[in-house]
Amino acid sequence: MEIKYKMWLEKDGEVIAGNGKVGLLKMIDEKGSIQKAAEKYSMSYRHAWGIIQKMERRSGIKLVETQVGGKEGGGAQVTSQGKRLLNQYDAFRKGLDQSVASKFKGAFKK
Amino acid sequence: MEIKYKMWLEKDGEVIAGNGKVGLLKMIDEKGSIQKAAEKYSMSYRHAWGIIQKMERRSGIKLVETQVGGKEGGGAQVTSQGKRLLNQYDAFRKGLDQSVASKFKGAFKK
Repeated sequence: MEIKYKMWLEKDGEVIAGNGKVGLLKMIDEKGSIQKAAEKYSMSYRHAWGIIQKMERRSGIKLVETQVGGKEGGGAQVTSQGKRLLNQYDAFRKGLDQSVASKFKGAFKK
Repeated sequence: MEIKYKMWLEKDGEVIAGNGKVGLLKMIDEKGSIQKAAEKYSMSYRHAWGIIQKMERRSGIKLVETQVGGKEGGGAQVTSQGKRLLNQYDAFRKGLDQSVASKFKGAFKK
């Protein structure tokens, strides 16, 4: 037997983000572009941007800044608050993975 | 913000049980009857028994013994292996709840 789990962030009973949405934000950070991040997830720019805006509204945190124009036709940057959320989520997820594994061993393997 | 999570047990990629199924097993243990436990969950006897049988098949553990006949028209008892699983699941879940809460505080409240 093995244990599986899913985690997500909520605020006032509304889902802010789980692994999927956090992954999108991370991809935007990596690509510096909502368009390119959306392509990686096979979704439209509009859909990806909608997800980010919903996360922002629900968390009350500005996550992505967009720049209009320029050679590349604009770009997007994850804000420092957004990066902080990404780092916190990653750290939390990793710590929890370890904790789940060791607690599972302790509880079920005896 | 707060963290939410869901956990469940799997074996060979098949779900054995999450909180719902474990709750049903616990209710059978409490009531000594599949029928009475099923009523508590507003489900039919057949459905409840089907859930338990699927859990047994997937886990390879005999969880419930049924007795036919008698004044009460038969009854059901959670086996000692079944009780062990209930206890392990409870202990694991409680430990994880605490761990999630403290790790969340550590990761996000700074």
